[in-house]
Amino acid sequence: MYKKTGKQTIIFENPIYINAFSSVVGKKEGQGPLNNFFDIVNDDTTFGEKSWEKAEMAMQKQAFELALGKASMNTDTLDYIYAGDLLNQCIASSFAHRYTKIPYFGLYGACSTMIESLILASMAIDGGFARNTASIVSSHFCSAERQYRLPLEYGGQRPPSSQWTVTGSGCVILSLDSKKKITITAALTGYIEDLNITDANNMGAAMAPAAYNSLSQFFKDTSTLPSDYDLILTGDLGYYGSKILKKLFLENGIKLGDNYNDCGLMIFDRKKQDVHSGGSGCGCSASVLCSYVLKEMENGRYKNVLLAGTGALLSPISSLQGESIPGICHIVRLEVI
Amino acid sequence: MYKKTGKQTIIFENPIYINAFSSVVGKKEGQGPLNNFFDIVNDDTTFGEKSWEKAEMAMQKQAFELALGKASMNTDTLDYIYAGDLLNQCIASSFAHRYTKIPYFGLYGACSTMIESLILASMAIDGGFARNTASIVSSHFCSAERQYRLPLEYGGQRPPSSQWTVTGSGCVILSLDSKKKITITAALTGYIEDLNITDANNMGAAMAPAAYNSLSQFFKDTSTLPSDYDLILTGDLGYYGSKILKKLFLENGIKLGDNYNDCGLMIFDRKKQDVHSGGSGCGCSASVLCSYVLKEMENGRYKNVLLAGTGALLSPISSLQGESIPGICHIVRLEVI
Repeated sequence: MYKKTGKQTIIFENPIYINAFSSVVGKKEGQGPLNNFFDIVNDDTTFGEKSWEKAEMAMQKQAFELALGKASMNTDTLDYIYAGDLLNQCIASSFAHRYTKIPYFGLYGACSTMIESLILASMAIDGGFARNTASIVSSHFCSAERQYRLPLEYGGQRPPSSQWTVTGSGCVILSLDSKKKITITAALTGYIEDLNITDANNMGAAMAPAAYNSLSQFFKDTSTLPSDYDLILTGDLGYYGSKILKKLFLENGIKLGDNYNDCGLMIFDRKKQDVHSGGSGCGCSASVLCSYVLKEMENGRYKNVLLAGTGALLSPISSLQGESIPGICHIVRLEVI
Repeated sequence: MYKKTGKQTIIFENPIYINAFSSVVGKKEGQGPLNNFFDIVNDDTTFGEKSWEKAEMAMQKQAFELALGKASMNTDTLDYIYAGDLLNQCIASSFAHRYTKIPYFGLYGACSTMIESLILASMAIDGGFARNTASIVSSHFCSAERQYRLPLEYGGQRPPSSQWTVTGSGCVILSLDSKKKITITAALTGYIEDLNITDANNMGAAMAPAAYNSLSQFFKDTSTLPSDYDLILTGDLGYYGSKILKKLFLENGIKLGDNYNDCGLMIFDRKKQDVHSGGSGCGCSASVLCSYVLKEMENGRYKNVLLAGTGALLSPISSLQGESIPGICHIVRLEVI
């Protein structure tokens, strides 16, 4: 049985249940509009550790243990972990899970990694390879700044199109038969799109074409329109990238309405929090999904949600070598059943 | 239907056919014992590019296009690419595939990435999500040296336990119904094992316990013994790591016989090529698989092979911060049917 619909979309045979989820964020995220939805807001962004990298490992570990607890599971019950982050060689993830003894798939999809991990985990469950999985990612403002840009101590100026890496981690436990309310019913894996944008301070613009490709293909494959969903979310296009996405849809005769939003615009208050174009990072879409989105689905506010995780597949080295910024966008459809 | 056998092993419902494969390596690899098995040996390790990173991108692109050609496919026929490499943010892979328009899963499993990608691709095919997939990884001695250790120009001394990153890329096209001779029939996804080894110049030692865990679990899950296989290969334990692995098995009453070898020991002639403990890197197991192993399976020399890809999930930053080296090992079973 071939589970593809149209060109790129998968419709899962079984509903993949979201058994439990958790979100852990830093102080600045806790001061934003979604404050009440996060499980843990840690005012100490060091998480009690001696380096920013170790802080991120600790944060991811905390999110993982919290989700496992909420699902009333121990590590033996999990077939696989699908994890990733933005650090070189993805060390936040590998160190966070080094003592769990759970079979581990390391992923790198830049800021789209949470959705990549949900797609692969859903495939494993639907394909008969797993009963329970964990999808987890993280990003940390301080570890990301010094790796991608400048040490914090340097106090560099940021252009208006730059985005603020979210300090946050989100974890989702998927199960074959938890019979909870929220399920993943469909998914689309994006291809890489590179339209030769080279400004690493405007990643929203670099990712918007990939988001347009994936979303428009999903609508086509499933014969749906944006108005068929309660909520359509991109991961971290930010203010400028979201504007480009809406323009791309308009140019093709489709209006993204008030049901469209971007996790990077939801997690911070741009007027009060000095984050320029909005939030970004693996932890952005993950922590918004694992707080506001899933809790409001549980509360009955949303029933049918598209989450389109966006990623910019560059590195500081590729930018220094004059390369453009390849973008990608993966989608999952979340439904209350 | 739940496709797990024992604790960690998957037995695929359908044989997953290896439709085509390709290997592209550098000059030093071409001077080694496997010279005649590689598809392309490029004596210019820059691959005509201006940086080592761009060279690696070009090499991976070459391997991909070669495999696609051998399978008589165009990019439209592939459902997914599963790709990864060792560079920060995995840029060799994302840039190599940025114009293919094939749905893309970015992976990071350090030197185990080829096996990780084969497992995920096999799951997608067996689960009904794909008909044809590409698994591809790369590593390049020069891009790895300057990222992980020292710029080549520095001419640093290397301790005897250090390994030599293979300049190489391997690509495998898997298909649901190509009806070729070689298939993937089983797989085991490893968990992370960290026994507190901290010497980044002895990664074989850090990875050997993970290799022991995964291989012994695979034997247990499938009720087989090492003697049941024509060939058991680890990815890149090298001379010292392989010795530790054999010792760990002996301590547990099992002798790894002459059918055991390590890709890192096969790709170079340690006595003549000054590579210390042997080859390593994503490209090591990938290029040995996609040359000697699969060609000798086609030739009838081997019928039943276990390939255990080993990875050290460290980064230069984690080592500088005094962290130990988490290891991982994933396994696929290859059978001629």
